[in-house]
Amino acid sequence: MKIAIAQFNPTIGDISNNAQQILQAARQAAKEEVRLLLTPELSLCGYPPRDLLFYPGFVDSLFQQLQELAKQLPPGLTALVGTVEPNPDANARGQKPLFNSVALLDEGKIQKIFHKRLLPTYDVFDEDRYFEPGYQSNYFSLHAIKIGVTICEDLWNDEQFWGKRSYQVNPIEDLVNLGVDLIVNLSASPYSVGKQKVREAMLRHGVSRYQKPILYVNQVGANDDLIFDGNSVGLNCSGEVVCRTKGFESDLVIVEFAEERGDLLPASSAPLPKTEEEEIFSALVLGVKDYARKCGFSKVILGLSGGIDSSLVAAIATEAMGAENVLGVLMPSPYSSEHSITDAVELINNLGINSHKLPIQEAMEAYDRILEPLFAGTEFGVAEENIQSRIRGNLLMAIANKFGYLLLSTGNKSEMAVGYCTLYGDMNGGLAVIADVPKTLVYAISRWLNRGLAKGEALRNREIIPDNIINKPPSAELKPGQLDRDSLPPYEILDDILYRIINQHQSEPEIVQSGHAPAVVNKVMTLIARAEFKRRQAPPGLKITDRAFGTGWRMPIASRWLSKSRG
Amino acid sequence: MKIAIAQFNPTIGDISNNAQQILQAARQAAKEEVRLLLTPELSLCGYPPRDLLFYPGFVDSLFQQLQELAKQLPPGLTALVGTVEPNPDANARGQKPLFNSVALLDEGKIQKIFHKRLLPTYDVFDEDRYFEPGYQSNYFSLHAIKIGVTICEDLWNDEQFWGKRSYQVNPIEDLVNLGVDLIVNLSASPYSVGKQKVREAMLRHGVSRYQKPILYVNQVGANDDLIFDGNSVGLNCSGEVVCRTKGFESDLVIVEFAEERGDLLPASSAPLPKTEEEEIFSALVLGVKDYARKCGFSKVILGLSGGIDSSLVAAIATEAMGAENVLGVLMPSPYSSEHSITDAVELINNLGINSHKLPIQEAMEAYDRILEPLFAGTEFGVAEENIQSRIRGNLLMAIANKFGYLLLSTGNKSEMAVGYCTLYGDMNGGLAVIADVPKTLVYAISRWLNRGLAKGEALRNREIIPDNIINKPPSAELKPGQLDRDSLPPYEILDDILYRIINQHQSEPEIVQSGHAPAVVNKVMTLIARAEFKRRQAPPGLKITDRAFGTGWRMPIASRWLSKSRG
Repeated sequence: MKIAIAQFNPTIGDISNNAQQILQAARQAAKEEVRLLLTPELSLCGYPPRDLLFYPGFVDSLFQQLQELAKQLPPGLTALVGTVEPNPDANARGQKPLFNSVALLDEGKIQKIFHKRLLPTYDVFDEDRYFEPGYQSNYFSLHAIKIGVTICEDLWNDEQFWGKRSYQVNPIEDLVNLGVDLIVNLSASPYSVGKQKVREAMLRHGVSRYQKPILYVNQVGANDDLIFDGNSVGLNCSGEVVCRTKGFESDLVIVEFAEERGDLLPASSAPLPKTEEEEIFSALVLGVKDYARKCGFSKVILGLSGGIDSSLVAAIATEAMGAENVLGVLMPSPYSSEHSITDAVELINNLGINSHKLPIQEAMEAYDRILEPLFAGTEFGVAEENIQSRIRGNLLMAIANKFGYLLLSTGNKSEMAVGYCTLYGDMNGGLAVIADVPKTLVYAISRWLNRGLAKGEALRNREIIPDNIINKPPSAELKPGQLDRDSLPPYEILDDILYRIINQHQSEPEIVQSGHAPAVVNKVMTLIARAEFKRRQAPPGLKITDRAFGTGWRMPIASRWLSKSRG
Repeated sequence: MKIAIAQFNPTIGDISNNAQQILQAARQAAKEEVRLLLTPELSLCGYPPRDLLFYPGFVDSLFQQLQELAKQLPPGLTALVGTVEPNPDANARGQKPLFNSVALLDEGKIQKIFHKRLLPTYDVFDEDRYFEPGYQSNYFSLHAIKIGVTICEDLWNDEQFWGKRSYQVNPIEDLVNLGVDLIVNLSASPYSVGKQKVREAMLRHGVSRYQKPILYVNQVGANDDLIFDGNSVGLNCSGEVVCRTKGFESDLVIVEFAEERGDLLPASSAPLPKTEEEEIFSALVLGVKDYARKCGFSKVILGLSGGIDSSLVAAIATEAMGAENVLGVLMPSPYSSEHSITDAVELINNLGINSHKLPIQEAMEAYDRILEPLFAGTEFGVAEENIQSRIRGNLLMAIANKFGYLLLSTGNKSEMAVGYCTLYGDMNGGLAVIADVPKTLVYAISRWLNRGLAKGEALRNREIIPDNIINKPPSAELKPGQLDRDSLPPYEILDDILYRIINQHQSEPEIVQSGHAPAVVNKVMTLIARAEFKRRQAPPGLKITDRAFGTGWRMPIASRWLSKSRG
């Protein structure tokens, strides 16, 4: 029996267009005599729909569209489509009003509805906010093959693999006890660095533990801060990958389940990225491309400082949008170095993007004159530094507003963590492209890029980021002779401390014990806590780690603890 | 037996200072021969601690402090203190790692730990993210009185009162079946308009249904966007209020439980606010005061446009911080009307606050000149309007940065909903004071204020907001002759449509059916959807309704549905 994985890129809430994508995949699959079509979790509305779920009209639309889709499917094809179902017992039993469901469409009708059993409520996930868990095992038969249906998290509770349980039940175990021949999993699993390796190791453990083949189907595409990488995969009973869809792209892959052997047969497998840098770069490119497209932008703008952060973002934008759709703006001040211009110009030439140069001195002077009555006799300080950054932010927004560009902000995770960035200045933008990339990783990706290994023609086989940008000491250039290292620990040290605080939730004494200087650790803790108000107002940042600022980072502002002192 | 309600104002994560506040209340209560001291939910860390809960060091600190506190309590006094407890079975049973708990402190030790049973996971609440529900009824005996312990949400599941269940179990019913004499509820229940009436009606229903007295203890104080109003209350078996603490202030109230009668005796009861306007004004004043204090600010700054929004915020700031700690800045442009200055000056005089006037024309011209190479030949439009707003935002931030002011932003909910505001301009600020107050309500509160009924001396018994500000047609004054009504429906109509979309989740056809013009409804829906990117970058806004933008509003940006079209 032939089964197709339709790994497509939905837009959240764009129900009819998502249905069209499912239908196209179904028609293509039917030509290949596919019997069963699999689509990702909540494929009809896209994942995550978030508070759109509170609109009864939204849930109604899904049901209408589902009925329509059932009628339109090619005859002889059964499809599993992700949707949301009302919970009729919610009020009487004190349950949540909806289920995160999969509909089995066949012979022109909705034949069955399966409900997700394990609901993730951690990090960026809020499923308990909306959904009641399903309480039954989900399966159906096709050609006398008994197929177990699981939805994303249902697969992520193997106490042997993780060394602990995260939920009371294990839906896979239940299905195996019910004698299924094949397990399918419809997912919307967001990308983070190295996640595909974890997924495949977990799947391998599952097939080896239960001796049942698994077909894992993932959503692809970026929705705000979340990037879904696709990388759908099938594993046979021996734990071998029999098929893998492309990463970071829509794809349709057909695989055969051999009924007599009770196993999946080898089909086509896309390779995994060779390096972490390649993987992250692809993720960020998809993140920019989809945010722009799904918000209706065809062109992006960004400020180019001659520094490494804006240079890397320019390269990502070029790959995502095409060089002709990227505008880089140089905005030198009297404090800008000669090389900030020459380096940025070299980058612009390397990328072939459009550019403008707008010196900001006149605006600085205007602010100085306006503020003279208040600022006279005070010393140049952070206020004056921020004014420069905010003038640049205003100019970029003015151009973006005037000509319909999406402004990309270029701050990295290390800066965002310690607040080494200006709110309403360089933080301006619709999307913060590398806000989850620590500075040390910004360097690594830039070096990788210069090896000429990027996929797209525009960035292939040559130096992209000028050497001098990679080699010079980083500086905000907001006052004469300013260098990052005068305000912050070296980035190797800073990034390690940040990782311990942000990702590992270590305490100050633990981090000191790991070998860092107490004063440095204390300073970083305080900086992180005090920058919370800035992060709260940051644009969505593309998530590439298991702990990103943004929807999965929920920290009080007016608080003590991380930082014992205020003011 | 005497029982004290310690309604105090914790700072999130400021564990030792919160413990000090509990200790002070305990010592005061002990002098009055109180036997049992009640404190709010999570009183030791403050509610909501949010992702600080992920730090094991944080949970350890709570335990250490709790043991310390138990030793320090006056002899003979038993205290219930809100804290967080690790769940030892989490990994083995697939449960969440923590409980939201109450510790019973007595005789120098932690005698018992009770766990919250119903965990709110909706609106601003994320308790399933952190906590496992308790599975047992919580009670203890003191003087042979059997006291049932419930924590906040445990009380909010009466299917008779609400017409539906929200959780499977009803902890109150369980406790009554176990024969308790008195039910106490330790809460951190955020304020929204009219909520106290709902709480007291619900409590009245509870005591009348079960014939047991209830003591309800609420947190007071504001934490970021959430305002906790206090208003702790005791009801006797007849459903009468026997005591009520002050609203929006710390308070300690002692009430007696008469063992022979099995009921609470009348004690002191603070009155409820006379009007909705008074209530909201008090809430917003507390919101500003606490955000400033808990973030370490003693002075606030805001822009004064001569419009009603900034005028109301100035009045709130004056009541919260004292007139001498408020700086209003006038920033006229060539498009500003004469009355924008005279009205603002009158307001400044009424309030007695400090002020500066900084004309922005010079900066506008500087931007024009810098942008000339790109903008030449284009028409004046939104880009140019935004530049003015952003110049003002920059000036305010420059002064705030230079002198350590907290910048208050002054946009109302109607504007925030439809995006009639400038990101990085008038949206700038650490706190958005009236971001959850619809424009029509801004008028109502301003009129109430002018009746001279405010509590504080500064605002009492005289006109505060100049009549002309209330009576003139609202305008952003970003181009000649501009009026809000040229871009938006009249605010009475807009606010009704917004309420239906935001609070009631109505669909376009439903709203049209209620009598609104289809084109207007469609326009408002589209504006709401398109302004999501602005709201995502807004400062925390003080929540006063049951559906505020902010932590309880989780809407995708790159999506369709509310608005069918993009671009």
